[in-house]
Amino acid sequence: MINLEQIQEISLSTPSKIVLLVFDGLGGLPLPQTGKTELETARTPHLDELVGKGMCGLSEPVSIGITPGSAPGHLGLFGYDPLKFVIGRGVLEAVGINFPIKPGDIAARGNFCTVDKKGLITDRRAGRLATRKNARLCKLLAQIKLDGAQVFVQTVKEHRFAVVLRGEGLNEALSDTDPQRDGVAPLEVRAHIPQAARSAAIVNSFISQARHLLAEHHPANMITLRGFSHLPSIPSMPQIYKLKPAAIATYPMYRGLAKLVGMDILPTGSSAEQQFNTLTRYYKKYDFFFIHIKGADSAGEDGDFQRKVRVFEEVDAHLPQIIDLQPDVIAVTGDHSTPAVLKSHSWHPVPLLIYSKWCRPDGLSKFSEAACARGGLGHLPATAIMPLAMAHALKLAKYGA
Amino acid sequence: MINLEQIQEISLSTPSKIVLLVFDGLGGLPLPQTGKTELETARTPHLDELVGKGMCGLSEPVSIGITPGSAPGHLGLFGYDPLKFVIGRGVLEAVGINFPIKPGDIAARGNFCTVDKKGLITDRRAGRLATRKNARLCKLLAQIKLDGAQVFVQTVKEHRFAVVLRGEGLNEALSDTDPQRDGVAPLEVRAHIPQAARSAAIVNSFISQARHLLAEHHPANMITLRGFSHLPSIPSMPQIYKLKPAAIATYPMYRGLAKLVGMDILPTGSSAEQQFNTLTRYYKKYDFFFIHIKGADSAGEDGDFQRKVRVFEEVDAHLPQIIDLQPDVIAVTGDHSTPAVLKSHSWHPVPLLIYSKWCRPDGLSKFSEAACARGGLGHLPATAIMPLAMAHALKLAKYGA
Repeated sequence: MINLEQIQEISLSTPSKIVLLVFDGLGGLPLPQTGKTELETARTPHLDELVGKGMCGLSEPVSIGITPGSAPGHLGLFGYDPLKFVIGRGVLEAVGINFPIKPGDIAARGNFCTVDKKGLITDRRAGRLATRKNARLCKLLAQIKLDGAQVFVQTVKEHRFAVVLRGEGLNEALSDTDPQRDGVAPLEVRAHIPQAARSAAIVNSFISQARHLLAEHHPANMITLRGFSHLPSIPSMPQIYKLKPAAIATYPMYRGLAKLVGMDILPTGSSAEQQFNTLTRYYKKYDFFFIHIKGADSAGEDGDFQRKVRVFEEVDAHLPQIIDLQPDVIAVTGDHSTPAVLKSHSWHPVPLLIYSKWCRPDGLSKFSEAACARGGLGHLPATAIMPLAMAHALKLAKYGA
Repeated sequence: MINLEQIQEISLSTPSKIVLLVFDGLGGLPLPQTGKTELETARTPHLDELVGKGMCGLSEPVSIGITPGSAPGHLGLFGYDPLKFVIGRGVLEAVGINFPIKPGDIAARGNFCTVDKKGLITDRRAGRLATRKNARLCKLLAQIKLDGAQVFVQTVKEHRFAVVLRGEGLNEALSDTDPQRDGVAPLEVRAHIPQAARSAAIVNSFISQARHLLAEHHPANMITLRGFSHLPSIPSMPQIYKLKPAAIATYPMYRGLAKLVGMDILPTGSSAEQQFNTLTRYYKKYDFFFIHIKGADSAGEDGDFQRKVRVFEEVDAHLPQIIDLQPDVIAVTGDHSTPAVLKSHSWHPVPLLIYSKWCRPDGLSKFSEAACARGGLGHLPATAIMPLAMAHALKLAKYGA
């Protein structure tokens, strides 16, 4: 498979436009009663029309048999091999709340927890405290002064928060403090390598000050930290593809991921109609649009088969708004499967549809898992979607003489 | 994917014979009026008969979405990963005119150009001067004496020529002198690495002598050089596959490429009938034949859909001449697609047909893009074609105990 440096050498800036429509958790499994998946159950005449003119296939987000998290799932769609570009839990947490993390920062995921008088954990989630209370405690922790680093502490939700350290020469090779079980004390941070020793001391100083500040705030009277990580070095989409890319996403994590790879984040309402209105409004200013539809995944996670069906039908009803703009390429796919019958992300490959006037049609007529399995694009890694979209938009020069 | 060293360990020399029939630019796109590609439009009863007995698939010449140049397209067919084995512009130019380039030589592509009194380029192609005049000027430049290298200067066509330097310790890490635009002077050659400094000095001496010699030959009163490269280290096909391979190709570049990988180049006429006569004549002397049919690509590049159809029909009419020789394997494919509607090479995967008595037939009956997309060989990288052909000729031993 071609690598990003090789793509960069042949990518061309042209006026043609690409719309990448991502249904989070698109793929599904059949209901035993009907033998049809969510997508196969949905009435999607506009998607089916694109299938008739375009090509289908099945995308492997990470690797055959592997269930992707949201970050690897999306990195693959943007063309970054998720087995090579790894985003640590801490960075993802910071990115997810739109914290402006910088190269050199180290980030960790934090939990408020409850400890007893001996310092042993009795509740790793501090009774899932109210997000409002979390916010007050984060303000308290943000006042901590450290020798050699500035600290940012920001609320995520309930017991969860993000910590970011900023300073010279910080190193993220640090162990977790969360022992992952009750009845034991939170662990000290240890440096995995000698160069991280100073960073370990800084984090341990933060934790000991936090313990002091939180002493009177039972049940949130202690913290654990895990997933220390730094911003990975990722070449941006404008750099690799010479695109001017924009994201139309409503959930902070996807906006954060899109920003990480160099997209502009467009202001938008949260319904499909509002997201497509945003596309129309900004259509002239960009040549690549990532539209993220969250509803399919949420319905799948909730095990709500019919709600997932309705998400597809609702988006399909508004699809003409995209089609009428006549983008050179429309790619429709997902970051992973979320079958309602499994109530979770899954490893099943994901339907993919590429529409452009340069497609070699494959004679299919319905956007579905079954049709995609027989599609002209075959089975392909998710990282091939960007090269395919670029090719069909005539944005890739010939490779080699 | 297995690598060439691993193939070499298991390849066997046997009397069985393989014919690789390559239609340059084989793959196409449908005419909007008919919905059929060039290949689907052509009447090809003999190819279809082979499909009925053999297996089909779609080949990805370089990587999904990538449009191959001719060199990468053919390297893939011969089993060399074109992302790993890169042939520089200069070497390809020399190989294309059948210059006997050797390991250690460095080659560049040259252009005659026009400069004004200040030395600024006014025409990068010297008015596309006549090839005859080019030949006279190349003889002039070939007389240049250099300290530490012998120089060869050979006409390609119009304003294009090839320069090859031969000597001890030459290094190809040199910058282009072609500024790629008018109104500026040709650049000096710079060494990209310290080890190339002496080579840069030699090339700059060549250029300054060339400037002097050409001064009175307006419009071809200066030169530019680009694509400095040396012969890549490529294990030969006889080495890897233990084959005795021969090429039946009419265009210099494909003959040059075939020679580069260790094939003998057979004398041949240019029609399919003449090329197949050559096959018959030399059939006993070799066990692998690469037959290169250029017409399909030329017709595609010209946007001449019907001419491309006729190329397929003409070759098919003479196909019994191959079939009657009863080779153990006949593989039919292309180095890339050249859809007439695009008038250029394209990224679309290429039809592939493998015929042998050891095929597991896939129930198809027409050699076409649509059939190949449903073929039993699936989608596969072009580099898998040689292992498949070798396997069906029973020329590969078991891998591992």
